[in-house]
Amino acid sequence: MKKNMIVGQSGGPTAVINGSLYGVVAEGVKQTEYIDHVYGMINGIEGFLAGNYMDIGAMDATGELEFVRTTPGSFLGSCRYKLPEDLNDPVYPELFKKLEEKNIGYFFYIGGNDSMDTVSKLSRYAAGIGSDIRFIGVPKTIDNDLVETDHTPGFGSAAKYVATVVRETAIDASVYDNKKSVTIIEIMGRHAGWLTAASVLARKFEGDNPVLIYLPEVAFDQDEFIEKVKAALEKTPNLVVCISEGINDGKGTFVCEYASDVGVDNFGHKMLTGSGKYLENLVKEKVGVKVRSIEFNVCQRCSSAMLSDTDLKEAVNAGVYGVQAAIAGETGKMITFIRHNSHPYELTYGTADVNIICNEEKPVPAEWIIDGCDISDAFIEYAKPLIQGDVSLPTKDGLPIFAYRK
Amino acid sequence: MKKNMIVGQSGGPTAVINGSLYGVVAEGVKQTEYIDHVYGMINGIEGFLAGNYMDIGAMDATGELEFVRTTPGSFLGSCRYKLPEDLNDPVYPELFKKLEEKNIGYFFYIGGNDSMDTVSKLSRYAAGIGSDIRFIGVPKTIDNDLVETDHTPGFGSAAKYVATVVRETAIDASVYDNKKSVTIIEIMGRHAGWLTAASVLARKFEGDNPVLIYLPEVAFDQDEFIEKVKAALEKTPNLVVCISEGINDGKGTFVCEYASDVGVDNFGHKMLTGSGKYLENLVKEKVGVKVRSIEFNVCQRCSSAMLSDTDLKEAVNAGVYGVQAAIAGETGKMITFIRHNSHPYELTYGTADVNIICNEEKPVPAEWIIDGCDISDAFIEYAKPLIQGDVSLPTKDGLPIFAYRK
Repeated sequence: MKKNMIVGQSGGPTAVINGSLYGVVAEGVKQTEYIDHVYGMINGIEGFLAGNYMDIGAMDATGELEFVRTTPGSFLGSCRYKLPEDLNDPVYPELFKKLEEKNIGYFFYIGGNDSMDTVSKLSRYAAGIGSDIRFIGVPKTIDNDLVETDHTPGFGSAAKYVATVVRETAIDASVYDNKKSVTIIEIMGRHAGWLTAASVLARKFEGDNPVLIYLPEVAFDQDEFIEKVKAALEKTPNLVVCISEGINDGKGTFVCEYASDVGVDNFGHKMLTGSGKYLENLVKEKVGVKVRSIEFNVCQRCSSAMLSDTDLKEAVNAGVYGVQAAIAGETGKMITFIRHNSHPYELTYGTADVNIICNEEKPVPAEWIIDGCDISDAFIEYAKPLIQGDVSLPTKDGLPIFAYRK
Repeated sequence: MKKNMIVGQSGGPTAVINGSLYGVVAEGVKQTEYIDHVYGMINGIEGFLAGNYMDIGAMDATGELEFVRTTPGSFLGSCRYKLPEDLNDPVYPELFKKLEEKNIGYFFYIGGNDSMDTVSKLSRYAAGIGSDIRFIGVPKTIDNDLVETDHTPGFGSAAKYVATVVRETAIDASVYDNKKSVTIIEIMGRHAGWLTAASVLARKFEGDNPVLIYLPEVAFDQDEFIEKVKAALEKTPNLVVCISEGINDGKGTFVCEYASDVGVDNFGHKMLTGSGKYLENLVKEKVGVKVRSIEFNVCQRCSSAMLSDTDLKEAVNAGVYGVQAAIAGETGKMITFIRHNSHPYELTYGTADVNIICNEEKPVPAEWIIDGCDISDAFIEYAKPLIQGDVSLPTKDGLPIFAYRK
């Protein structure tokens, strides 16, 4: 008997989360033997509970779906809604009633850790009540911190952005190379430093900027940092330092919290300052050279100009594979990437238990971090294949065309 | 009699200032009848005075010059050195002695307002002592604020960056579209709002983000701003506001200075905060919705991924035309762009007196600014041709190859 399917997106967006959406929808539309309608939840599970969904499968026939593939952000909208831990909560029967009303047989959720938690709970509840709806998670996160998979869709494009823009910024920072200066670049990553580590790819030659790289995996010592900056300035007059937003003292205090303790705005509120801004002031005070801090902010997760073709293709394939796995009978699983080789790069797709994934985070291995401030060649070998290839976007009047819900 | 030529770069870099350097050098090398060696000053006039220069013409034969063309930043290094107002200062005979020692007949300086001031002083001093060295300025500035020229090289690529990344950011900001939010984007431009105005190009349809755009040309009223934000949120739940870094109260106080009065860091120093960060706190306080501020920072002036092909070609041509003008006998001039038509776009090159250019700034015309917070179609018509065309960069391992001095 044919069933309908539904797909949602959750958590912070990436440059390729819509690539996975495209993969899920395109494959769903193709599976006419098993699947009737392909629905999309608007604003994830939260929106679906409020009755918001759309017939996204219809966009395949009109050709609009093709534009979704290369559009950053979450086309269906996102949410940060966490389902209750208690599977006896009334939200579960409410949700399953809505799913059954729409004759849903396949449920896909594209997201990170928290989204896999949703898939875990729904699949466990389904097992409990004997529902045959299948729940599949499709990974996405620029943080690259999901276990059971070699890497996550979204990381490659964000890493390509970081490597490219750090390389550009380092060149920009060195034009007054007869005067010493420090440029501090703050990169996303609260708990895992994968994306900040990718800044090592920006180096054009040995010893090039960024000379110092700090990840949240290593306790950050402010005095040691200042000494390393001073030493590095002797060799590199225009020093570039890359830091994760989540660098911390190893005892639970983020570096950015040191600043927030003191800065107060017009209204008497704490001025929430990033770690980069805090270190900018620290270097100004302790080293006395010109300092600038740059926060890549959301630009690093939504750049269409720096999409990695490898990343986008894998994101699409993860969606396609997710639909195939569901039809084959899998549920409570996340799609995983299995790397067989880096030269040449060889990857296949698999599935893993979401219950393991949603409760763990994968840090950058300690042995890939050198002296607490540099990244090893093993990381470079790991990351390089993921940023390969450019994507040519549809454009109009010199700007990329993006899909949006009307 | 054949002479040597020398070229320098000054002021803040752009994505295409090396395009102009390429144009000057490539044309200089070609003009074998008039020009012998093509030298480059390292760190502009300041570096040249300290004896730093290189034989950049030699890079043409080795093929390295081609990589310079698409490299952001100032390949030769830059400076912010201002020559003394008093032409009787001993630095002038010192400088001319150095120029004569190297048999320089042609001097090119690529830069903005301050660089044209250098060209003005040197050409006036040359006239005073009867020197036949010819001094030509080649314009560059993302600010687009030079008079006597339709626009400046560097503006088109920065405008393409702003339009593209505002469009991406607006999509990223709207993924939680069931919750109201404000995103404030701070764009470079201390006194002129041309680049911030380019954010209007990001709109995908009428009424799209950025809904509010504020330039330094209009006095900024904080109360009125909050009222406009509240009204705009009624129609656009995820509001994007673009502001120039230089927005001010019309009486000489920058908006960012309001914040700097109060924020104090660990060391008792004023925390220098941007206008965007200040308004983020203001909106949080007065409107009470989720707010984020984003500073495009130097990324907007050094992006190779978002180069405008039109801008790069014009930057190269400005350099080529500069060499030709000098050989034809011109001195004390800046190369200018003369637009004849926008549909189709038609441009020719000319020259103008640097003495006029170095003392004036060109603001965005008042009639192109609507209600103090929007940009007219006349600006769109003006700016659109300047962002057309993409540039394919040489790459290696998924990243752009950039030239650098060894």
